[in-house]
Amino acid sequence: MGKTAVEKVFSKKSHTDSYAGDYVVADVDYVMVNDITGPIAVDAFNSIGNAPVRDKIVIIPDHFVPPKDIKSAIQYRKVKDFALNNGIENFFDIGNGGVCHQVMMEKGFAAPGRLIAGADSHTNTYGALSSISVGIGSTEAGVIFATGKMWFKVPETIKININGKLKKGVEGKDVALKVLSITGHDGATYKCMEFSGTAISSLPVNERMTIANMTTEAGAKCSFFDTDDKTIEYLNKRVRGDYEIVKSDADAHYESIINIDADDIEPSVAVPNSPANVKPLSEVRVEIDQAYIGSCTNGRIEDIRKAAEILKGRKINKRVRLMVVPASQEVYNQALREGLIDIIVNAGGYFSGTTCGACLGGYMGVLGPGEVCISSTNRNFIGRMGDKTSKVYLANPSVVAASAILGRIASPEEI
Amino acid sequence: MGKTAVEKVFSKKSHTDSYAGDYVVADVDYVMVNDITGPIAVDAFNSIGNAPVRDKIVIIPDHFVPPKDIKSAIQYRKVKDFALNNGIENFFDIGNGGVCHQVMMEKGFAAPGRLIAGADSHTNTYGALSSISVGIGSTEAGVIFATGKMWFKVPETIKININGKLKKGVEGKDVALKVLSITGHDGATYKCMEFSGTAISSLPVNERMTIANMTTEAGAKCSFFDTDDKTIEYLNKRVRGDYEIVKSDADAHYESIINIDADDIEPSVAVPNSPANVKPLSEVRVEIDQAYIGSCTNGRIEDIRKAAEILKGRKINKRVRLMVVPASQEVYNQALREGLIDIIVNAGGYFSGTTCGACLGGYMGVLGPGEVCISSTNRNFIGRMGDKTSKVYLANPSVVAASAILGRIASPEEI
Repeated sequence: MGKTAVEKVFSKKSHTDSYAGDYVVADVDYVMVNDITGPIAVDAFNSIGNAPVRDKIVIIPDHFVPPKDIKSAIQYRKVKDFALNNGIENFFDIGNGGVCHQVMMEKGFAAPGRLIAGADSHTNTYGALSSISVGIGSTEAGVIFATGKMWFKVPETIKININGKLKKGVEGKDVALKVLSITGHDGATYKCMEFSGTAISSLPVNERMTIANMTTEAGAKCSFFDTDDKTIEYLNKRVRGDYEIVKSDADAHYESIINIDADDIEPSVAVPNSPANVKPLSEVRVEIDQAYIGSCTNGRIEDIRKAAEILKGRKINKRVRLMVVPASQEVYNQALREGLIDIIVNAGGYFSGTTCGACLGGYMGVLGPGEVCISSTNRNFIGRMGDKTSKVYLANPSVVAASAILGRIASPEEI
Repeated sequence: MGKTAVEKVFSKKSHTDSYAGDYVVADVDYVMVNDITGPIAVDAFNSIGNAPVRDKIVIIPDHFVPPKDIKSAIQYRKVKDFALNNGIENFFDIGNGGVCHQVMMEKGFAAPGRLIAGADSHTNTYGALSSISVGIGSTEAGVIFATGKMWFKVPETIKININGKLKKGVEGKDVALKVLSITGHDGATYKCMEFSGTAISSLPVNERMTIANMTTEAGAKCSFFDTDDKTIEYLNKRVRGDYEIVKSDADAHYESIINIDADDIEPSVAVPNSPANVKPLSEVRVEIDQAYIGSCTNGRIEDIRKAAEILKGRKINKRVRLMVVPASQEVYNQALREGLIDIIVNAGGYFSGTTCGACLGGYMGVLGPGEVCISSTNRNFIGRMGDKTSKVYLANPSVVAASAILGRIASPEEI
């Protein structure tokens, strides 16, 4: 019987012939932790007593760094000391890293056919590069530090076919929101969400990453996109080592198939308090206090370019605080080279160093009571970006930039 | 009898003929609050019931912005709402402001002969521009919001003459530390520290600002530097309205006079836990975890230029986190234009948006237990930048940059 991509990867990595529902112990190619999950992983690792599987460990402080308080300084110090004391080469320090998922992709860890485990919920993102990448617990990460392996149940796969031509103004974020409007917040729990169709092929890699990233919001264990020329081009600039392209068989079993007509996707907004609570942009008119562009969802150079295109020569509304937070130091440096920072600060925006920042209410633009934010991030849960009475609306970065100018949620077409 | 500059300003502003020790009620030219002191000032103002003296009020959120947590979001929102609701034009929002003292100088509020009250301890800084600028309490600031006036005791003046030629490698910070090594941390309590002499005249305005800033660490109520061509040049680019040059009379009474030979000043470090605990740089060799360049003391464009000159084409030590935090959005923009950000990030440094940041342990590089920081800021008290067991050493920005490269407190000459 044919296999899905995720069944193939788990079979290979576990040296078994496995299908969805089977339990396997698989070799993990890389295990990633950040400054929040890393300290717990280190404790778990230390309790085992093995030598670390050095080459598989990737440590990327990103959530509360540069340290925002003493507690976060302690967490950061713990992972840094672990890296220094154990000869962990893949420690991406402040000034050389960024948001963990972005770093995993741009530094060439993610690649087709690899099994990557990350102690962060949005590890799903590397499916955009045909990796099987899964979010795991911090303690589990510590076990992989010590053994290089972990047990998994092989996920079922939901296939999402999106065919046709995406409308003008529709970005990867809108595709992700459309899918969430169908699956809801738990419609893909522990599943692999596999994307295909002409609309998907037409999207650049960065927008596929946005979609892959937000499969977490449907409960998915992982995501998968086929490898194509765009994938290869992205990889050629940065991939570490060899990789093996993997693809679902034509006769693979899918748990379900969702067909979407590209023409049915429009610029959208996820309104409080769920990413699956999606409305057409045209129906959402809300005054805002903050506009936030950043995160592993939409903090890439292409996102900042889109924002800069809208902001160029304009000024943001004086009621609004515009935060632009690049997803990595590489994104930061590229924005600097391209003159995008100049455009953003001249519009009155605040261009931050790279961090997860306020996406999770960490710092760098936390919301107070009743404040309203339009954000390019992935979650608008109650209190996600600050006070429990604040409200977060999710949209693509062009919408966020347009909203910063008009002081209310707005379409770039209104500028 | 002749008057000191501070006696002249208080006499004029109080319409009296006053000398040190007299109590006066004086017209204040500007009253400044930030995001920490502003909310308390607003409450005090509201309790009075007057209309605000709009043109005198300057509000500059800087300490914990962009909001680092919900509490700081509430404080920020309170001063922003006060500004919006009361038509306060001089509200310098995130993206358009910076560290309050830097903004007060670069936006032309500080000028010769003006009396400026600021609800922040380092308001002393504008003495570099021949202002009499004093730190006041937040509640007092609220009273000035309502009345435009405040009571003061006219300070005695200590004259500090520094003559001769400053040695190579000696910056304004080293002059400040030399003075503190003589006065101690309380040798100028409630005094005006008036600087003169050929070494002072030779210093550019930005280095005078560093010295003026650190008079707070000797307990001074204010500082004063004579107006000269350099002052005028700085003012011409930015001053608001007219101003009147003021100067101490030849027969003015000084509480004391300190004479320093420029040749006796060398590159120095204030070691924990007092800015007055000063040692020659050559005697301090300590490994560091963080190098911090920023703050109202030494976060100006000239400071960042000095750091960039040392960092250019080099890499920081991998043990070290280098934070460069511009003192204002104007400084940020200038660093961007001059390519300095590029140099710093290429060296492995983290270039932050403008904020007070970790200078006061706020965020953006807070120290964990036992961590050691070399910093261009003004205070190295116990726990100032983080955990109470962390240690802060104060030095000029060139020393901080050199230390970032070598991983220990070091002279630029060692690079």
